[in-house]
Amino acid sequence: MTSIGFLGLGIMGKAMAINLIKAGFDVTVWNRNPEKATELVVLGAKQGTSPKSVAAHCDITFAMVSDPAAALAICQGPEGVAAGIGEGRGYIDMSTVDDSTSQMIADAITNAGGRFLEAPVSGTKKPAEDGTLIILAAGDKTLYDEALPAFDVMGKMSPFLGEVGQGASMKLVVNMMMGGMLSIFSEGMSLGQKAGLDGEKLLEVIAAGAIANPMFKGKGAMLLAEDYTVSFPLKHMQKDMRLAVALGDKLNLSLPTAATANEAFKQAKKAGFSDEDIAAVYKTVK
Amino acid sequence: MTSIGFLGLGIMGKAMAINLIKAGFDVTVWNRNPEKATELVVLGAKQGTSPKSVAAHCDITFAMVSDPAAALAICQGPEGVAAGIGEGRGYIDMSTVDDSTSQMIADAITNAGGRFLEAPVSGTKKPAEDGTLIILAAGDKTLYDEALPAFDVMGKMSPFLGEVGQGASMKLVVNMMMGGMLSIFSEGMSLGQKAGLDGEKLLEVIAAGAIANPMFKGKGAMLLAEDYTVSFPLKHMQKDMRLAVALGDKLNLSLPTAATANEAFKQAKKAGFSDEDIAAVYKTVK
Amino acid sequence: MTSIGFLGLGIMGKAMAINLIKAGFDVTVWNRNPEKATELVVLGAKQGTSPKSVAAHCDITFAMVSDPAAALAICQGPEGVAAGIGEGRGYIDMSTVDDSTSQMIADAITNAGGRFLEAPVSGTKKPAEDGTLIILAAGDKTLYDEALPAFDVMGKMSPFLGEVGQGASMKLVVNMMMGGMLSIFSEGMSLGQKAGLDGEKLLEVIAAGAIANPMFKGKGAMLLAEDYTVSFPLKHMQKDMRLAVALGDKLNLSLPTAATANEAFKQAKKAGFSDEDIAAVYKTVK
Amino acid sequence: MTSIGFLGLGIMGKAMAINLIKAGFDVTVWNRNPEKATELVVLGAKQGTSPKSVAAHCDITFAMVSDPAAALAICQGPEGVAAGIGEGRGYIDMSTVDDSTSQMIADAITNAGGRFLEAPVSGTKKPAEDGTLIILAAGDKTLYDEALPAFDVMGKMSPFLGEVGQGASMKLVVNMMMGGMLSIFSEGMSLGQKAGLDGEKLLEVIAAGAIANPMFKGKGAMLLAEDYTVSFPLKHMQKDMRLAVALGDKLNLSLPTAATANEAFKQAKKAGFSDEDIAAVYKTVK
Repeated sequence: MTSIGFLGLGIMGKAMAINLIKAGFDVTVWNRNPEKATELVVLGAKQGTSPKSVAAHCDITFAMVSDPAAALAICQGPEGVAAGIGEGRGYIDMSTVDDSTSQMIADAITNAGGRFLEAPVSGTKKPAEDGTLIILAAGDKTLYDEALPAFDVMGKMSPFLGEVGQGASMKLVVNMMMGGMLSIFSEGMSLGQKAGLDGEKLLEVIAAGAIANPMFKGKGAMLLAEDYTVSFPLKHMQKDMRLAVALGDKLNLSLPTAATANEAFKQAKKAGFSDEDIAAVYKTVK
Repeated sequence: MTSIGFLGLGIMGKAMAINLIKAGFDVTVWNRNPEKATELVVLGAKQGTSPKSVAAHCDITFAMVSDPAAALAICQGPEGVAAGIGEGRGYIDMSTVDDSTSQMIADAITNAGGRFLEAPVSGTKKPAEDGTLIILAAGDKTLYDEALPAFDVMGKMSPFLGEVGQGASMKLVVNMMMGGMLSIFSEGMSLGQKAGLDGEKLLEVIAAGAIANPMFKGKGAMLLAEDYTVSFPLKHMQKDMRLAVALGDKLNLSLPTAATANEAFKQAKKAGFSDEDIAAVYKTVK
Repeated sequence: MTSIGFLGLGIMGKAMAINLIKAGFDVTVWNRNPEKATELVVLGAKQGTSPKSVAAHCDITFAMVSDPAAALAICQGPEGVAAGIGEGRGYIDMSTVDDSTSQMIADAITNAGGRFLEAPVSGTKKPAEDGTLIILAAGDKTLYDEALPAFDVMGKMSPFLGEVGQGASMKLVVNMMMGGMLSIFSEGMSLGQKAGLDGEKLLEVIAAGAIANPMFKGKGAMLLAEDYTVSFPLKHMQKDMRLAVALGDKLNLSLPTAATANEAFKQAKKAGFSDEDIAAVYKTVK
Repeated sequence: MTSIGFLGLGIMGKAMAINLIKAGFDVTVWNRNPEKATELVVLGAKQGTSPKSVAAHCDITFAMVSDPAAALAICQGPEGVAAGIGEGRGYIDMSTVDDSTSQMIADAITNAGGRFLEAPVSGTKKPAEDGTLIILAAGDKTLYDEALPAFDVMGKMSPFLGEVGQGASMKLVVNMMMGGMLSIFSEGMSLGQKAGLDGEKLLEVIAAGAIANPMFKGKGAMLLAEDYTVSFPLKHMQKDMRLAVALGDKLNLSLPTAATANEAFKQAKKAGFSDEDIAAVYKTVK
């Protein structure tokens, strides 16, 4: 059976690793702060001493860390993944990183003889616990095929998207649509209520028709309650919309609706809502 | 038991009337071309001789005709609904008409002593046949309460929205969101594919996440197949977006995303796609 | 010599009539409140007793009143211009009115045997006094030719634009450009100053280059001084932008920049600046 | 008298250097291809052998080269300006370069003990010949003061704008306004003509009013003649608009009109007009 390494035991990583252990995989975990590994060892995991040693002893090593700097740190250096990975072993980084970081990690691994997949996920804590993440995989196809049984445990779908970079592109496209939808949703909810319609009724009618979707349901309840408790920070959405519009620029594509929605999120940032939930864009519209 | 009149036996009206008959209601039908009534008479309906006589003999009379001119025609004149409706009888116009037409009909009925509801529907042929329309009712609340058993047969939901005009407003808000969503969806599908992503994969990932909705599924398949067979004509969507933006103007609300999406649909009209499906907006983006 | 009638002696009309008198024309004036005519009689004008009598006795009668209702009022009724104008006499309405009002006046005059020109002006009090208005004439070409000597006294240019309605269209197009320019100017002034540039220096550099124009000079000084004393009310500009975008809709033309600038002016209205100068759009951008 | 070095004798540089020579300055020129210096030597210039030697022998050395790579090349390396400039001598780069290139050059010069000004210009061949450029200077104020007599020969204005980077910011702001104005101008010219107005008449009326500016005059003639001979390439304008919107992003400023105009220029690029004049944006609107 494939032996699995798992680096990074934060909220997301811990939930994902537990699912792998419970599914019967032979899992070796590592975390910068080793105490966080205790709970998983109790469940049956081995504990590694460094990213290097984990990568050297496991068939496939997964990583799930918080940002590009952390993703680079566990890959590079004398104790990093690249130093340990041997000919043919696999490394799958599931962290959300930018294109150039992903490419740097890919180069480091393949130069060391390893195989690499980027596999950023769509979904937060609950889907990670439930094993219903959407995993956007791109890179080495043979590694993807071998990793599928593990992906099936962690996610509800895990399409293979092509070369390194395509996972990040997919996430950008989906988030751009999400931002545009939230902007038009905010405008529609504002217009309806100013026209005298009841907010709850609006949500009910929307929920019954062709445009019904989980986001409108969740964010709709939030904006009627004027509760903007952060789940996806508004400033991150604006950053993704900016990057999506910039990608359109590079690919010679005019995206007026996305560009306008981007400016709406910038307006919300300017109004001081950067660290609130994306639903707070409604506050600058209503 | 409430006796029901039904005026207008086009594609929509015929399906709706059949459902009422099958549910056991005492239904009297009328159509400008009387031959269309035959099939319903076979199923158990009575046949009326004029809108006036139907309205005079039934507790509640429904109408479902094609446009504002037809809606006015069956209400006004010596053989119209207003001439027949007596004190306390009800008239429910389910046609899609503009605000001022709806108000003219409301005035004609109430001046004649009748009660009035506007009840435009969301949904096309299939939901009409399946009894799963969304009915947006507004006007006389007592009539609404009496009509609910019939609404329950024709639709899957039929919220009461307030004064005459609110049904039309609700439809405008929903269609505005629909147009904005289709514009950002077209941009995202274009961006993703230009970035090298497979169109089918894009649709799969979207279908699995928080923004999944029936419209993206249906229109997504259409645009990948480059099939713009009309279900909702693009020019009608653009008209609705124009009216929604104008309503924002009247209510002192700035709607930049809707306004931009409106211009995208105008661009598609300019390119010659007025009579194709709303999905054809994609052709001017890609 | 051509005898001239002049109806309406408000701020604009009085200045224009004085210029005609001083230029040696034979001028008969009329104003709803006759006391306002005294000053002009002193300068040599005759005083008429009604729009009807003025139109009946003068070769060409001009009108300059405040709104469409006033423009209709002096034209229609037993004492109106149409009742007095004979075969071949001319009537030139220089008031700013909408298309349909202009057409109603045109019909009333031509049905009575008269000739008609619409001639809305661009420019306010100072250009009216200085005889440097821009006169946008459209309608009867023979009347235009006869009126040219008078136009030359009142304005610095008075192009003939075609059929009745073209004068109003020209004004709409110019005001739409004005609104779009003011929106991008506000954004540029905000961006420059946030980037650390001095506002005065920005205006100097703009004034020296290819985009230098009187409006940027005048409004630029206003916005640096935070002085929004009304010269052109913001709500009127927003109305013109709305009409221009609607005209594009009718003519099958997509106008995304105008539509976006229109939403910026709506945002300013929503923020409470309707009755301030158009320059106040800057306050919602900075 | 101040001795002046001039590096780069292309269309712009040659015209500027000639003006300095004719004004009586002691000028030493250098060009990568030395033959281009001959004409200036005939007029009285000395000829330098390298950027290093020119910078070492002149009080102030100006450079005007075609792009960031060329600007870096003449500054760096064993024969570059930085290698020759001594304590207190001045270097003024008038080329149009991006922020980071300008900062790299500034660092190289100041680390070598020299003083630095960035001074990008607004204006093309004709203003360079006529000495009517707009010079946007930023950096060392003492050097600016010493260079003023030379700036006065080359330009009609040369404001001092602050720290290195402010010259580039000013140019970006002005070009952003230019792009936005050209977009709304294209929309207005299209709308007017579709409404039946004569294009020439439109330009005349615009030229007489508050929005009259040299750019509308020049570009207006071009678009009526359907002549898009390049003076300012469309792709460069789009790049500047993209950078301006990105600067707004960085400074937390929402710029919807600029963002929308940027998408209009992207639409024009997509349609294949990248290398035509900026006026070609009209072709995608009309």
